[in-house]
Amino acid sequence: MFFSPRDLRFHLYEVMQAEKLTQLPYFAEHDRTSFDMVLDAAAQISETLLRPLLTVMDRDEPKLVDGQIRVHPQLGAIIRRFGDDGWINAPFTYDEGGQQLPATIMNAATFIFGAANYSSSVFPFLTTGATNLLRSFGSKELVDRFTPMMYAGRWQGTMALTEPDAGSSLSDITTSAEPTDVPGEYRIRGQKIYISAGDHDACENVVHLMLAKIKGGPAGAKGISLFAVPQKRFESGTLVGNDVQTAGIYHKMGYKGAPIAHLMVGSGAGAIGYLVGEPHQGLRYMFQMMNEARVGVGMNAVSIGTAAYYASLEYARERPQGRPISEKDPARPQVPIIRHADVRRLLLFQKAVLEGSLGLLLQCSYYADLAHAGDGEVAQNAALLLDLLTPIAKSYPSEMGCLTTSAAVQVLGGAGYTTDFPVEQFYREARIHPIHEGTTGIHGLDLLGRKVTLHGGKGVQLLVADMQKAIADAKTHPELTYLASQLGEAISHLTTVTTYLLGLAADPTVFLADATLYLEFFGIVTLAWQWLRQATIAQAALPTAQGDDQAFYQGKLMAARYFYEYELVKTLSLVHRLQSTDHVTLEMHSDWF
Amino acid sequence: MFFSPRDLRFHLYEVMQAEKLTQLPYFAEHDRTSFDMVLDAAAQISETLLRPLLTVMDRDEPKLVDGQIRVHPQLGAIIRRFGDDGWINAPFTYDEGGQQLPATIMNAATFIFGAANYSSSVFPFLTTGATNLLRSFGSKELVDRFTPMMYAGRWQGTMALTEPDAGSSLSDITTSAEPTDVPGEYRIRGQKIYISAGDHDACENVVHLMLAKIKGGPAGAKGISLFAVPQKRFESGTLVGNDVQTAGIYHKMGYKGAPIAHLMVGSGAGAIGYLVGEPHQGLRYMFQMMNEARVGVGMNAVSIGTAAYYASLEYARERPQGRPISEKDPARPQVPIIRHADVRRLLLFQKAVLEGSLGLLLQCSYYADLAHAGDGEVAQNAALLLDLLTPIAKSYPSEMGCLTTSAAVQVLGGAGYTTDFPVEQFYREARIHPIHEGTTGIHGLDLLGRKVTLHGGKGVQLLVADMQKAIADAKTHPELTYLASQLGEAISHLTTVTTYLLGLAADPTVFLADATLYLEFFGIVTLAWQWLRQATIAQAALPTAQGDDQAFYQGKLMAARYFYEYELVKTLSLVHRLQSTDHVTLEMHSDWF
Repeated sequence: MFFSPRDLRFHLYEVMQAEKLTQLPYFAEHDRTSFDMVLDAAAQISETLLRPLLTVMDRDEPKLVDGQIRVHPQLGAIIRRFGDDGWINAPFTYDEGGQQLPATIMNAATFIFGAANYSSSVFPFLTTGATNLLRSFGSKELVDRFTPMMYAGRWQGTMALTEPDAGSSLSDITTSAEPTDVPGEYRIRGQKIYISAGDHDACENVVHLMLAKIKGGPAGAKGISLFAVPQKRFESGTLVGNDVQTAGIYHKMGYKGAPIAHLMVGSGAGAIGYLVGEPHQGLRYMFQMMNEARVGVGMNAVSIGTAAYYASLEYARERPQGRPISEKDPARPQVPIIRHADVRRLLLFQKAVLEGSLGLLLQCSYYADLAHAGDGEVAQNAALLLDLLTPIAKSYPSEMGCLTTSAAVQVLGGAGYTTDFPVEQFYREARIHPIHEGTTGIHGLDLLGRKVTLHGGKGVQLLVADMQKAIADAKTHPELTYLASQLGEAISHLTTVTTYLLGLAADPTVFLADATLYLEFFGIVTLAWQWLRQATIAQAALPTAQGDDQAFYQGKLMAARYFYEYELVKTLSLVHRLQSTDHVTLEMHSDWF
Repeated sequence: MFFSPRDLRFHLYEVMQAEKLTQLPYFAEHDRTSFDMVLDAAAQISETLLRPLLTVMDRDEPKLVDGQIRVHPQLGAIIRRFGDDGWINAPFTYDEGGQQLPATIMNAATFIFGAANYSSSVFPFLTTGATNLLRSFGSKELVDRFTPMMYAGRWQGTMALTEPDAGSSLSDITTSAEPTDVPGEYRIRGQKIYISAGDHDACENVVHLMLAKIKGGPAGAKGISLFAVPQKRFESGTLVGNDVQTAGIYHKMGYKGAPIAHLMVGSGAGAIGYLVGEPHQGLRYMFQMMNEARVGVGMNAVSIGTAAYYASLEYARERPQGRPISEKDPARPQVPIIRHADVRRLLLFQKAVLEGSLGLLLQCSYYADLAHAGDGEVAQNAALLLDLLTPIAKSYPSEMGCLTTSAAVQVLGGAGYTTDFPVEQFYREARIHPIHEGTTGIHGLDLLGRKVTLHGGKGVQLLVADMQKAIADAKTHPELTYLASQLGEAISHLTTVTTYLLGLAADPTVFLADATLYLEFFGIVTLAWQWLRQATIAQAALPTAQGDDQAFYQGKLMAARYFYEYELVKTLSLVHRLQSTDHVTLEMHSDWF
């Protein structure tokens, strides 16, 4: 198996009690049974449709043929299946044809899809994001024009942001929009690069949610507007070309099944873009989707890591090699490598990072549900926590996913480096996540430069209060006192370091120089909090657990200990560095390299 | 450029004073001029022959066609060129046609070749290793039969160790050897897997230095013998097939230009193997070559990392994106990304790890030269230091090379993930090094379980004495007192932790449970020592340096500071973990995962 249904249900029902969401009116039609049906359906599609294509989609890359990108021939059926089964608009309202599914459950399904075959899961995921922008900010006319075909999986949605000279620096985009005679319609001209699913033959049309600058608007980020720019537009009731040409396809190290395109917009007959919402609000709108997408990216990273973890676990249990350290008689049979301490370390590392991250991401999804469907202070606090945790939920799993997939390769040794096993593919795929939807460096700046002090630091206060509550809960179990105290110390370090850094804020260059390390530090403490919560539930359940459940809870307690012993301990070094006055990265000159 | 000639000469002539080697009789014919000619020749071949094939060798993988592996058509000329120019036997004696070139200079050349195109450099490197085994332990007859064609680059040499059921556990090989009527000739039967350059059409023959067990010999490692098993053997003066069949080729994540083969030996008409040296001494012989190969692997890791570093440095200097943190006016032009602190951090990380590692590996090569060509205590001490440092020199650069190439990808962002730039290839190639020539886990066991206590711990005593000398030298410069004191503390931590762990040696399972972390810890301290030496030289040279040299020495001093601030600081966490009494990896059960 490529994920653990048992573990997923542990997070949802034992740690988070996700079924409580159904007490909110928006989710009232759901119950645990319907949640489970959704998850079972996700697992079923994943096993039967997605996983069988994992390898072949990597080997047979999409190609640009006669100006159109050709993807794996079965993707059309897969995307339609996502549409037919209602996945693409599942979180949206019943009125829109959706299922009002909590983000918590939707993201749990995303986790399953991504673990089965990340490339194939990218297509519907992007369309959900694009339609969400349209329905949140677009006119009814735009919604009616585009979303039905997108919900059906017949039209692809994308996010079209990046340009050759504007990647991380979105304020520098140059794609232009010029009003036409028709209100709301603009002539779009420019280039977009790295557009995921930006063109392919598995759908009949592609709708780009594209950033562009209306001529004469303000400079920089304040002049960016959002447009729906379809590859083909309706004219007198029939689809005609909209002058969005595919100039190239990028070949990538991994997740090769999902193409990324270089688009030329309006360089010929002219491309029409439909303004979404108000002019000059594009970046704000886009960030709503980006924030959701960022939690999604974190989840994708955990998915790929989890698939690699289970592949390496299976290998470690089956592969005989060597003997216990205390047993040197070569006549004795070899033992499975899972018996070796260092292999167990490599497996525990993966388990601790991935299950801790999965907990955090589901927690963030739960906050999204409360923020969206809850009331008053509960909703407000959830929104603050989500805002604060988003850079961590995106970046920690992404950065660590590179290391956990590397550990999976290492468990297999030479075999792991060959294409005979899927772990090398997971290693290549995992490397994208620290890059897309904002690099780790960008998220470090976001966390320390913005999120920590947002709303007078209330997000941090709420988080620390939640952490303190987790400590108090854990301390009801004598077995967990030690871990609980360590989290207490870590929080105290986090507070000290944060206060120290905020004291430097008058010079933003110095203040933010190590923001990436601060993000890492904050991420580790956050994961330690997640693990304490998981350990508390496991410790409470263990005495009466039987059979597989007993092993499951024991595994949870060991992974929690592992996280504290091998990962939380890394904060000792980070605390030291983050308070150092040696600003070597600032003092280095470009020509001294 | 893919490496820095200036930096290489800094290590060789300013830090190590490699020209002193020419005072030893074995190297007396050399001088600094001849060393430089060798390095210039290596750079010249690398630029003109190897680097142009970097990408194409990755894209057009070797293929198995009609039972033979076909490699890139230009490889034949390249390997012959290595032969013609005398690279393959350069370290060997004049009597053998060699040049008595110091390992220090040979490995510096290896560094250049690997940075240009690692895959292509593998072929001659393997032949050198194989011929070294033959000349060290084989009869004159065997040497005469095989080595001339190998030195000429016409026959390939390999190390044929791994079998389907014996990877890390070499004592479990089952390939058998049965004496024939001809003394020294045995009938070999078995399978070998993952044999680098084990078959290809760029050479006329392949000579496998193969481990096998003579029937009736002792069980386990003590029954392993070494054979030369050619793909084609001479019979009545003509080359005939020797029943070494290529059963398959493995496809790998990286360094795709160098094929690894699955060989069936003696499954048909019969394969003849020629016993090298004495029966049952095969593992001991092989470890001599493995130890050299291990320093070579560390060097290859640094090579690939260095190529990635310079590719990312070039990009960072040229790519405009964003503005300084203190400059928010969108009307101002974008700045090259090297101006951003986090990009400089990613670059300094690479520089600090790679130049520190290069120093260590050249230092180890220097010890190899002293051990081989020096006298008395000097030679003995050098051998002890080399023995101690080999697991570190192999593993630290290999493990860190995965992270430095990842940092290079991150500098390029989305561009780095595409095949438009070489960094994604370097990222894939770097991942092999923690696996081959012994996994990192194996080297951890070797260091803590064997090397630290070998010869009554004399290796560690010598190393600590060298480190203390470096501290004393550094303290003559007030600017370096702070770094010197930190190294002093780190040594004290290393001693404390080592003593603590040796106190657990009565229970080897507990003693060695975290040997990999101990290896990491020891590696960081070792690199800090290397950096203090480099900083001391740079600090002394700086006051009178001009122009480029001034920038060079400033860069060295900054990289040293970076290493201490961001890398040495990690030992704080490692010291804590290594003395913890929570043996979570030992207590974890296989069925709790």
